[in-house]
Amino acid sequence: MARTESAKNLTLEAPQGADVFVCVTCRKAGDDEEGPRPGALLAAATAKAAHGTGVTVIGVECLGNCSRSLSAAMRARDSWTYVFGGLDAANDAPALIAGAQLLMDAADGTLPWRGRPDVLKRGLIARIPPLHFTPTPEDLE
Amino acid sequence: MARTESAKNLTLEAPQGADVFVCVTCRKAGDDEEGPRPGALLAAATAKAAHGTGVTVIGVECLGNCSRSLSAAMRARDSWTYVFGGLDAANDAPALIAGAQLLMDAADGTLPWRGRPDVLKRGLIARIPPLHFTPTPEDLE
Repeated sequence: MARTESAKNLTLEAPQGADVFVCVTCRKAGDDEEGPRPGALLAAATAKAAHGTGVTVIGVECLGNCSRSLSAAMRARDSWTYVFGGLDAANDAPALIAGAQLLMDAADGTLPWRGRPDVLKRGLIARIPPLHFTPTPEDLE
Repeated sequence: MARTESAKNLTLEAPQGADVFVCVTCRKAGDDEEGPRPGALLAAATAKAAHGTGVTVIGVECLGNCSRSLSAAMRARDSWTYVFGGLDAANDAPALIAGAQLLMDAADGTLPWRGRPDVLKRGLIARIPPLHFTPTPEDLE
């Protein structure tokens, strides 16, 4: 199946940019069980949208956000990692790429609210600090 | 305030083990607005429970899981990162440490289901691949 095949080859573009992980197993209640999984369709659409952007798209088996699928996560070099849910296979690939580009360009490693696509505002599931994170006094006051 | 002070000094133990990030700003609807934040109490209890375990506990300002607080995340060297919600400040610090120790010892970098504390089963919010993650064919089939 072409969709499955493309989900197997989602590593594209420059490794120094940003990574977007898309859950390829996500399916919602009522989705066609015989057809391609919506998560795999989102992964394929996101990989296509990533061409030339410096964003790498990686299909992943389950991001653990099953109750609020479709799911994706993103991180850039030394950035926080962001997890998003409630994504739509047909529409949200460009938002994932736009968000990853914002994150890649963020000097402080956090995804700015301003300019963030709406689906990445309402769909935030969690954010996790970068490696070698040291809390500043402001983080803990 | 003693609780706030301890939340400011949560980096403990060996950096080669596992890191547990606890949201110190988490508060639930109806919580006392004047008292110490439940998230900070959970962070302090987890730091205390971490002594001698090789687990580092780090208080973080917001893990973005506000609707399903209290929140924590964990990762070990080369492991997946796990985010948990619905945690209880009074009871769940030992479970976070037990989970982090399981993750630290996991040869494949994933948190085993067997032996996982119940609160880390029902409270899973998301999991994110390690750095340098390359999907295997099994991940994408």
